[in-house]
Amino acid sequence: VNVFGRPFRSIWVEPDARVPRIIDQTLLPHSFEARTLTSLEDAAEAIRSMRVRGAPLIGATAAYGLALGLANDPSEAGLRDAARHLIETRPTAVNLRWAIDRMVDGVLACAEGDRADRAWVEAAQICDEDVATNERIGEVGLEVLRELAASKPNEPLQILTHCNAGWLATVDWGTALAPIYKAQAAGLPVHVWVDETRPRNQGASLTAFELREQGIPHTVIVDNAGGHLMQRGDVDVVLVGSDRTTAHGDVCNKIGTYLKALAARDHEIPFYVALPVSTIDWTLGAGVGVVPIEERAASEVRVVRGRGPSGDLVEVELFDAVTPVANPAFDVTPSRLVTGLVTECGVYPAEPLALQGLKERVEKTTGRDR
Amino acid sequence: VNVFGRPFRSIWVEPDARVPRIIDQTLLPHSFEARTLTSLEDAAEAIRSMRVRGAPLIGATAAYGLALGLANDPSEAGLRDAARHLIETRPTAVNLRWAIDRMVDGVLACAEGDRADRAWVEAAQICDEDVATNERIGEVGLEVLRELAASKPNEPLQILTHCNAGWLATVDWGTALAPIYKAQAAGLPVHVWVDETRPRNQGASLTAFELREQGIPHTVIVDNAGGHLMQRGDVDVVLVGSDRTTAHGDVCNKIGTYLKALAARDHEIPFYVALPVSTIDWTLGAGVGVVPIEERAASEVRVVRGRGPSGDLVEVELFDAVTPVANPAFDVTPSRLVTGLVTECGVYPAEPLALQGLKERVEKTTGRDR
Repeated sequence: VNVFGRPFRSIWVEPDARVPRIIDQTLLPHSFEARTLTSLEDAAEAIRSMRVRGAPLIGATAAYGLALGLANDPSEAGLRDAARHLIETRPTAVNLRWAIDRMVDGVLACAEGDRADRAWVEAAQICDEDVATNERIGEVGLEVLRELAASKPNEPLQILTHCNAGWLATVDWGTALAPIYKAQAAGLPVHVWVDETRPRNQGASLTAFELREQGIPHTVIVDNAGGHLMQRGDVDVVLVGSDRTTAHGDVCNKIGTYLKALAARDHEIPFYVALPVSTIDWTLGAGVGVVPIEERAASEVRVVRGRGPSGDLVEVELFDAVTPVANPAFDVTPSRLVTGLVTECGVYPAEPLALQGLKERVEKTTGRDR
Repeated sequence: VNVFGRPFRSIWVEPDARVPRIIDQTLLPHSFEARTLTSLEDAAEAIRSMRVRGAPLIGATAAYGLALGLANDPSEAGLRDAARHLIETRPTAVNLRWAIDRMVDGVLACAEGDRADRAWVEAAQICDEDVATNERIGEVGLEVLRELAASKPNEPLQILTHCNAGWLATVDWGTALAPIYKAQAAGLPVHVWVDETRPRNQGASLTAFELREQGIPHTVIVDNAGGHLMQRGDVDVVLVGSDRTTAHGDVCNKIGTYLKALAARDHEIPFYVALPVSTIDWTLGAGVGVVPIEERAASEVRVVRGRGPSGDLVEVELFDAVTPVANPAFDVTPSRLVTGLVTECGVYPAEPLALQGLKERVEKTTGRDR
């Protein structure tokens, strides 16, 4: 997807250098800066501090982190240590574990001397597959949007999204935003309501940035406003991403998603979740109270970064540090509130039986591919 | 209610000076500064820029604004101009119009030479009545909390509130927070989840400040978190204020209230609204799409004020001004989601028939008093 008119991925490797580069997303939308990851710890730090975030991009970054770690220690013990270290950076996203498991399996099949090479190939493959998967999610989701738009010709389809599930959350295209990019390419007029997404403001900082760079009409709102917009009739569909979806179709995503799903249901507005199949945690049935919810630092709520009067980035405290704060990062939207799961394999209802069918289909395909 | 261990009202008149003073709430929680209102325009500006906010305090400030205006022009035309000017400052709160109408009626009954005196007396009476009304709301609400707490002895009752409906939103005591202050006095243990309340952060800035000064346990959360806390079983009751409630029991309050009401209903958690009867707009039946919803400036969402690295208050931009923003300030919670209305006359169900009964009761009392 384009930035300043040029195509970009959110993570890439400089030719012949074996150093992955990322965009430091904590500086967006104020400044667009690339950052080089030179070690396993660099990668872990980038994930922990959310320079990279979004389930698919976390997975891709961890894969490269493992490759960087292998340069120092290609032993099985070293590999398993590195894997554990990376998995501990963020507890909720399931792609992180998925990407690490895939890397470990692939790498352990090789002799120690070949492991680093194999890791670089595997990480690159994870990235390329992510791009292809998301583009496919975009095509599948476009059909959903097209159908919804059919009932209001000559007017833009009004889409509400939460957090950032765009190309910055993946390697490219995004999940929830991929159908929107495909809609633009197909000439289907859309307008996107962008939830600010406190406490880290990924909506206002990242989604609005992405949409502006792509020239897609959008409006930033506070997280409190979505229900009122639905009451006004100004939302046709809600489209969000997912950090982990259970085998029963419960969707764990950025905190606040559940509230928007409730409002959508109250107005019979379709609520779709776009996700790669790798985001489904087949080991979990019900999600509420079961998916581990990351509790992040109070400072994320208390301290806000923005451009100060002198033009520099400044951090300001909204209130002082003695005020107690709770900061859960995710919530679970029960499957009963989800209209459909938009995956690279098609649209699935958020129901155990349908998802079981998806699982079997994916296992068969993977089996055939390998 | 206390600040720094001393009792304060949110608006008061210096003895013999006929100058009302307010606390500049836009500087809280960073700095506690009184400000003198010397003219009608000072009062209008204080309301418009939200140095004072909260439906009852807006009404009280407007009453003093009218008194200040009469010093310059005690004619009926001047009075009506002043009234119109004040009413235009905030379109949603119904107490504003209620207080102005009461002032105009009272003042017009006097000869021109007596009008200013009468206005000062009437404004003071509005303030004193507000304090008494809110204290009564506190007593009525305490019984509601006591009943809820009975099912969990030895554990604090977990209350979630949105925005600020405390003493800073009224002349003293508050509406939603009055029962909490009464609970503290009665030795009933409570803990309050304080919604940050974007975009102006009245929860984190004002409610948390009030609760801290009174020594009531509380935790600030982002507006997105309430649903998750309910999923975790950490909320026993939601208690909010109201800017305007219709005769059918639909509750207009700070944007985002509706989303919390939906989540409460999804968990069968009681959702109470505390309000003086003067907040009820008897002219409106259904509220959704009917109560005028103030659209405020984009800069409220884009610009955040906090304490910068040097200790000064600094405004920072979260994103640049070309990004489109929508900023509706209120939403309407349909009566079907409201467990009860806590008023100075008792707890009423949010239903047309019950509220008709309340109206008749109030009219009878007012008739007898006058």
